[in-house]
Order: sequence, then structure tokens, then C-alpha cells
Amino acid sequence: MSIVPFSTLDEFREVLAAAPASDPAAEAGAKDRNGQLTKPPGALGRLEDLAIWYAGWRGDARPALERPQVAVFAGNHGVVAQAVSAFPAEVTGQMVQNFVAGGAAINQLAGVAGAKMDIVALGLDDPTADFTEGPAMSEAQVVSDLATGWATVDSQADLLVVGEMGIGNTTAAAALAHALFGGVPEDWTGRGTGVDDAGLARKARAVAAGLAANPDAAADPLEALRCLGGRELAAMAGAIARARAARIPVILDGFICTAAAAVLERTSPGALDHAVAGHVSAEAAHRALLEALDKAPLLSLGMRLGEGSGATLAIGILKAAVACHSGMATFAEAGVADG
Amino acid sequence: MSIVPFSTLDEFREVLAAAPASDPAAEAGAKDRNGQLTKPPGALGRLEDLAIWYAGWRGDARPALERPQVAVFAGNHGVVAQAVSAFPAEVTGQMVQNFVAGGAAINQLAGVAGAKMDIVALGLDDPTADFTEGPAMSEAQVVSDLATGWATVDSQADLLVVGEMGIGNTTAAAALAHALFGGVPEDWTGRGTGVDDAGLARKARAVAAGLAANPDAAADPLEALRCLGGRELAAMAGAIARARAARIPVILDGFICTAAAAVLERTSPGALDHAVAGHVSAEAAHRALLEALDKAPLLSLGMRLGEGSGATLAIGILKAAVACHSGMATFAEAGVADG
Repeated sequence: MSIVPFSTLDEFREVLAAAPASDPAAEAGAKDRNGQLTKPPGALGRLEDLAIWYAGWRGDARPALERPQVAVFAGNHGVVAQAVSAFPAEVTGQMVQNFVAGGAAINQLAGVAGAKMDIVALGLDDPTADFTEGPAMSEAQVVSDLATGWATVDSQADLLVVGEMGIGNTTAAAALAHALFGGVPEDWTGRGTGVDDAGLARKARAVAAGLAANPDAAADPLEALRCLGGRELAAMAGAIARARAARIPVILDGFICTAAAAVLERTSPGALDHAVAGHVSAEAAHRALLEALDKAPLLSLGMRLGEGSGATLAIGILKAAVACHSGMATFAEAGVADG
Repeated sequence: MSIVPFSTLDEFREVLAAAPASDPAAEAGAKDRNGQLTKPPGALGRLEDLAIWYAGWRGDARPALERPQVAVFAGNHGVVAQAVSAFPAEVTGQMVQNFVAGGAAINQLAGVAGAKMDIVALGLDDPTADFTEGPAMSEAQVVSDLATGWATVDSQADLLVVGEMGIGNTTAAAALAHALFGGVPEDWTGRGTGVDDAGLARKARAVAAGLAANPDAAADPLEALRCLGGRELAAMAGAIARARAARIPVILDGFICTAAAAVLERTSPGALDHAVAGHVSAEAAHRALLEALDKAPLLSLGMRLGEGSGATLAIGILKAAVACHSGMATFAEAGVADG
């Protein structure tokens, strides 16, 4: 049972501000252990940094990674009225059914990663309002979705990936990124599931209209989430915040996940210290978003599917890092001469 | 039981020339299937290409990947007399014991990947000759080690990774790469397990001396393997050739593995079509070698351990690609509207 410790955006803000830090003793212990393992110093490259980071967040210098959770949130978007997607809005629900039936990419990827998977459809018959005409959500709505995300996290999980499905949500994420980081709409819009040039131009116009119709969004990241985001984006943000509170490390997925996560970092700097970037998406604005957050992706394989797919693929990298760190012999144990 | 179909280097050359190709029908079937899966076209990026490539080599448009094999070969090198390594030669045998005891990085990585692991120590008390003074091996020796590699491959495996352990073998691999691809010694020498600047200079001098002492090496890749390579490099080349004969796809590891593999490609162009590059190592010359072979790495995580570690980490990527390809529902099956 999980008690959600906020019922307003301001209370959520306080939760973020009070978030716990990594455990310095566990991190120091992990660094020390890493230096003794039977390999040349640094030879496992980024796997070594990952293991030490994971150890710090888990508060255990020799941690295990055995219970990853993949939570996929789905929502619908009023902005599809602006013809911003290559697929009709009905596909959101159809794909949720596909998730439940086990037929989507994320099901296969979660299976390979040994992750349990939760699927949360956030009122697909109750889409957000079209943000080109005003706020996408009320405060009650966005808080409710943050709380759903918060409550979805399994407190026994030792790793969290959040994914999404929502026709139109690359446009919402682009508007959100624009509000959070400035620039021009074209900096943040891409082809999503595959719009043509005209669709891409419509996306940029929708983003510009969204910022114009919601003048307070650029001043406050949580207000940006409410006005320009989406229900599944709010749930992802809530889940990532909950993971921090429980010191569960997070692997970020693609553009939409990262835009939702960025709301937390812009609200409370350091709020994503418990998160690594699982991959960089082929959706071009994702790279810019990761750079703005100073997150180097683990994978770069041209993926652009969402669903949590890239991050779930990266679970194997983190599992391998932790397995090496915690399972390898030291030079002394193995009787190997230390160069 | 596996009959080794060669007993001379010329017979091995004939085996390479007679190697089977990918199955075009399976590859076409996989492409067709890929286009029907419940995702926007291309949204799984490189995973889609990997799955189609794997299907072609397995001769199955909807393949499984269930029995990966990791074979680690160890050998010792006379060139250590030139003080080219940060570790003493005894470490080769000590690390083999560590592999057998399950304490090395590769043991943990194979475990995460669900791979069986074979460890082959190639007469650690019988190192190659110091190639700065003449050929590292006789023809009988290199053929014997090619045959050992060949016979080590499990014909029931559906994926092969070959790894290595051998103090001094980055110097052997550098000399081999220099013979195969030209340039200057410094193009191919790096810090290996961690030599200092003086050690690095000694490596470059050893490579130059090796080429000078073995003037025929640059004219014939198999002669280069004999004169400049090592016992574990020959075994890796033999195993990769055997995998091709059995249409078992291969993931290449780092610099040393790739140098051994390059012998096959330079002997018989296309001999590595059944192989992908698992990662790009922090050993700088690896990137150049991959570029020379036109192989784009799946991972880039700053690893430089050898043992097959980077390639074994990449098994998870290929498993995920195949799982998505073969496990996902089609648009028709899932009742999802195709954009």
C-alpha cells in the first residue's frame, strides 16, 4: 500500500524538494570494491559508473538487480484535432489491448529483461483538451494523474522504467519541452510515428499555438505539464518522483518520457539524479532534451517507438553492470596478480 | 561430433571460399513480417535490421535465439619479452582459473545473457615465439589452433561470441592489423590493459619489428595470423569460420577478436557477413578496424576488457531484436489500425 503524499501541485512541489539523496557510504563502498575486481582499472567503462551509481541509490555497496518494473501509461490527446499524427486516436486503445494481450514490442522487451510490466490506461475516453485553445488539464486532473503514476510504482521494485502510448503525444511533449527549455517550436517537433512534411508543419503550428494559448506555462514547469502535457506524461512524472522517494533507480526512455521527466528536474534541480538515459531516440529533439538534462544515453540504435522500449532494452545493460560489480571476484579472492 | 575439414592453411582457405550464404527466402520472409508488426515502420530502428539479418542466417523468417554460446580462448605470447603489457604473463593462466571458478566479468555477463560458456586454454606453457624475431607460430601450430577453435563451436548453438585472454595480445593484434590494413604501427597500438607512455612506445616498436622480421606477413592474411597473431587469435578465427559454415550468427567483441576476424575477411571477402560488431572498445584502434570492415558497433560504452565482454553484453540486444520480431503481433492479429 502506498500513500500518495500530495493532493495539489504545490504539495507535489514540496515532495520533490524533500526527495532523498544517494547514500554516500554505499557509493564509496562500491567505488572501493570496483577497484579490487579482477579487471584492469576502468576496463568495464561505463558499466563501472553505472554499478557505483546504482549502489549509491540502493544504499548497498554490493547490490542486486532482480525486480525491474516497467510501467506503461496510456492517454489520449485533444491536440489530435490539429491533425498532428499519422495514426488515428483509436490506436491508443487498440495498442493498450495489444499490451494486455502480450503482442507489442514492449511485451517482448520486458520478457527479455525479466521485468514485470504494468499497464495503466488513463481514461482513454477522456482525452486532454486541445491545448491550442487553452489548458490541456485542470489542476485536479493533472494531480490525479501524477498520483496514479506515484501509486503504480511497486515499492519492492529495484529498478523502474516508465513508458507511454498516446496518439498525439510527441506534439504534447514538444510543447512541454518548448515551455521548459525555450527555443522555437521546430527545435522540438519531429516526425513521431511518421507524419509527412505537412503534418510536421502542423505539429510546429500546434506547439506555437499551445504556448500562445497558455501564457503561464513557460514560467512554471508543473503548470507547463498541466497546460501542455498529457495524462500519461503526468503519470510518468509521478512515477519517476515516487521512484526517487523510494530510492528506486530509473532508466529514462525516449522523447516523451524524457520531456515528462524534465518537468521534475526543472521544478527541483537534481530531481533526476536517480535516473539514467536508456537510449537516444531517432526523434531528433530527444538528443537536445538529453543534452539539456546532461544525460548521456546508454544506447543509440535508431529506435523511436516509445512504450518504454529503449529504456527496457537498456535494463540488460544495467543488469550486466550490477552483475559484474557484485558477482566478480577480487584480485585477492582469485589469486590474480594485480598489475 | 565435428569433423575439422582442413589440415593446412590452404585447405582452410578453401573452406572459407566455400562458405554458405544467408538464405534469401528467409530474409525476404522476415522483411515481410517486419512490415506487418504493430509498430510504425522503422520504429525499432536497428533492432529491425538485426532481426532480418539473423533470420536470413538462421534460414527461418521467424527465428528464435535460445542457445547462445560464448567461447573464450586463452594463449600466451612470446612478445611479452618486449615489455609490452602492464601485467605479467602469469595473469593469463590466473584469469583462466578465474573464468573456471566463475569470478570474472565474462562469467557474470554470460549469466545475464543466458549463454553457455566454454573456456579453452591453448597451452599456456607453450607461448608463441617472440614475433619481433621471426614467426610467432609454425603452420602446424596455427592450423592446430584454428582447428581447436573450429571444434569448440557447438553446432546446436544459435549465436556465437568468441572472447580471449592473453597477456600481450593487444600487441599481437596491433601487428596483425598493421599487416592486414597498412598504416603505421601507432595507428594500431593502444594502452591495452593500461601501459604507460613508455610501454606504448615499446608496443609500437615491437609492431614495427614484427613486420620487419616477418616480411611475408603483409602479403597473405593467413600468413600474417601465423607470423604475428597468437594461439587464441587463431582459435577465434577458426571458431568464427566454423560458425559461418554452420550458419550460426556471430557477435564480434573488441580489438583482438576483430583483428582475428579480419584475417577471414581479408582472406575471403564477405567471410564476416554472418557477424555484427557487438561494441566499439575504448582501445582506439578498434574503431579503425571496425571502419575498415564496415561494421557499425551495437554498443559504445567505453569497455576495453576483452574476454568477449562487449559482445556478450550485446547478446541482449540481439535477443531483444529477435524476440520483438518473432513475438510481436501483426496489425491484423491485434486489430490495430495501420497508419
